[in-house]
Amino acid sequence: MSYRVPRGTFDILPEEVKIWHWVEKQAQEICRRYQYQEIRTPMFEHTELFVRGVGDTTDIVEKEMYTFNDRGNRSLTLRPEGTAGVVRAFVEHKMYAGPLPTKLYYFGPMFRYERPQAGRYRQFHQFGIETFGSQDPAIDAEVIALGMQFLESLGLKGVKVEINTVATPEIRARYFDKLIEYFTPFKEELAKDAQNRLYRNPMRILDSKDPRTKEIAAGAPSILDFLDEECAGYFEKVKEYLDLLEIPYVVNDRLVRGLDYYTHTAFEFVADLSGAQASTVGGGGRYNGLVQEIGGPEMPGVGFGLGIDRIILALKEQKVDIPVQDQLDCYVVTIGDKAKLYSVKLLKTLREAGFVCERDYLDRKVKGQMKAADREKARFVAILGEEELEQGNINMKCLETGEQEQISLDAIVDYLSNKIQP
Amino acid sequence: MSYRVPRGTFDILPEEVKIWHWVEKQAQEICRRYQYQEIRTPMFEHTELFVRGVGDTTDIVEKEMYTFNDRGNRSLTLRPEGTAGVVRAFVEHKMYAGPLPTKLYYFGPMFRYERPQAGRYRQFHQFGIETFGSQDPAIDAEVIALGMQFLESLGLKGVKVEINTVATPEIRARYFDKLIEYFTPFKEELAKDAQNRLYRNPMRILDSKDPRTKEIAAGAPSILDFLDEECAGYFEKVKEYLDLLEIPYVVNDRLVRGLDYYTHTAFEFVADLSGAQASTVGGGGRYNGLVQEIGGPEMPGVGFGLGIDRIILALKEQKVDIPVQDQLDCYVVTIGDKAKLYSVKLLKTLREAGFVCERDYLDRKVKGQMKAADREKARFVAILGEEELEQGNINMKCLETGEQEQISLDAIVDYLSNKIQP
Repeated sequence: MSYRVPRGTFDILPEEVKIWHWVEKQAQEICRRYQYQEIRTPMFEHTELFVRGVGDTTDIVEKEMYTFNDRGNRSLTLRPEGTAGVVRAFVEHKMYAGPLPTKLYYFGPMFRYERPQAGRYRQFHQFGIETFGSQDPAIDAEVIALGMQFLESLGLKGVKVEINTVATPEIRARYFDKLIEYFTPFKEELAKDAQNRLYRNPMRILDSKDPRTKEIAAGAPSILDFLDEECAGYFEKVKEYLDLLEIPYVVNDRLVRGLDYYTHTAFEFVADLSGAQASTVGGGGRYNGLVQEIGGPEMPGVGFGLGIDRIILALKEQKVDIPVQDQLDCYVVTIGDKAKLYSVKLLKTLREAGFVCERDYLDRKVKGQMKAADREKARFVAILGEEELEQGNINMKCLETGEQEQISLDAIVDYLSNKIQP
Repeated sequence: MSYRVPRGTFDILPEEVKIWHWVEKQAQEICRRYQYQEIRTPMFEHTELFVRGVGDTTDIVEKEMYTFNDRGNRSLTLRPEGTAGVVRAFVEHKMYAGPLPTKLYYFGPMFRYERPQAGRYRQFHQFGIETFGSQDPAIDAEVIALGMQFLESLGLKGVKVEINTVATPEIRARYFDKLIEYFTPFKEELAKDAQNRLYRNPMRILDSKDPRTKEIAAGAPSILDFLDEECAGYFEKVKEYLDLLEIPYVVNDRLVRGLDYYTHTAFEFVADLSGAQASTVGGGGRYNGLVQEIGGPEMPGVGFGLGIDRIILALKEQKVDIPVQDQLDCYVVTIGDKAKLYSVKLLKTLREAGFVCERDYLDRKVKGQMKAADREKARFVAILGEEELEQGNINMKCLETGEQEQISLDAIVDYLSNKIQP
């Protein structure tokens, strides 16, 4: 019997992991410069947290969560997104009592039961940042700038930001009424999903993927016409910062983030790709109500989540040159049992000194060992025969130049250090 | 309503994540030198894989798995250990057809429903390596050496290896008979668990934690008296390599790894700690039957799994000095609205140049901003007033020396580059 990876999930094989390492390193390095610190929360949480923190009218909570009871009969859910867990930890550990703003990031797997398709998986991976405690529009701009700098550092081309404001719950309530008024005459023509949402969350109809619904939505009133002075002023300020930062953005008044607790800024990062489906690589916004919703004090927040799987797909589609380094400093070839025995000690010494090295573990003859060294692109081959071993010597061959010389066994670390930077 | 982290799991907060980063970096670096490459498999697999690959008489499969049906009614299980998934991927992607031996490592969360206690969690974390395709006892020694070098690189003191051989299934079958013969007269005195195992897997009684069972087990026959020439020779060879590598080990003929597919070498890494419970930080062994069990060709394998949570606990208990770097290169203090606006651009420039920098996002006065810079241990404060901004200048203050000078705004990257290595 043979087994397969679960549907909608995938293995990241060694060649591919190198790309992931590089992407993670960029994220870490940029967060370091912006003073965002990593936090890690568990892969699952109490189900109620997501119902509350993501919203019970969302697709995620309604249809996509991996929910199960543990052996103690508690309902747990594999995290479908990263923000709820981070906010829960922020509240539980009373991080709000520390210096503000708190700047956090996360990187890791998330889980949604979706129909698998290119760039969309049931276990997918997000890099996200959250910052708590500041109402300054400059920090909305900083969050967007960090995301842009990350995407640009990867070499992703043609990224732009779409931005909107979702104002405040009060303003949204008034806007909701107008939307319901607008959509009701079209009700029968709307997609099923949109119909269901009409009275509960009509803004979600605006970002419907259904062609006819999209057409109808195009004529709907714009939230921008409902803003009060404070909301309009906040939005203007964010845009002013983005201008100053020379971040390419467009205002898209159809952009909604669907979660009840969002306030003011909402944005998405959109990459220039052939397949429209994969073009949004992430998004975020301000959520001034969420910390309180999860049991904390009144505390503003803003953040984003980026889909790493989609970003890697986009990098490949754009044929971005990814700097992946492989390096084998030295392959130890042995002749005879004594040399073979001794070689494990030699390898340990070289590895402790920082060199990448290898030997044969398949009982190959000298010729086979030399072939393996070649195939693995070793820079040096160290050839150890019984006679050399007795005399305390070893033969070093540089595979690039073909040069060969005999040196003292004791000198091998110095020798390689001179030839190679370990 | 407020929410808590699920029982038996924990958040890794920013200060703690720094330790994890460092541990992960050591693991990555040592694997690089030994030419082990990372593989990432999903957090869950088809339940059947673990029943087959871990063994249906094990505690893990009998009592500890997080098993649930997905919305398509397939039985999935959060991975309780790392080997089964890696072997599944090795077979599924036909990695056995590539150059051998294949050397892989993994690092990540695992899940077992256990009674939570110090260093034992329901979401725990393992670093493991697996190598496929070699029967050379030198690679058993290499696997152990890699683990030792990792633990030593962390600064963990007093680590030694306990080693045993579990021979082959055939030899174990004969040994099982002798064990059953030995334990049967004591049956009523054995712990409940041990009684249950008596006829199914009597070797597991040898590592019972129950005091009376332990006493009885002390007199049981040793597997070392049942070895054939091949098994004995293999075991000798592994020990010879360990001697040569100067790895401190003791033979412990009571050490079993409990899984049916283990063959020959079994070992554990034991750290010198006060709490006996946490002293084993990991273990592994050779499993020549497993790849075939999972549907692959006949293919030997050997590996280990190390418990990262326990290792970090041990590092703390031993008060190991963990090199954690914090660094804030420059805090930008602004006076007036124009300077505040401009500062986001300045920060972007500095961060793009590689510097770690920060500004105020809480509308603090100059004094409050200076305090924040102090508290965050900034190396430099850049003070920007409206007059300076108009003249294109900025004041730089070194917090260590108190020295202050005015420079051209355009020169700030050069200035900091001279003072600090970004």
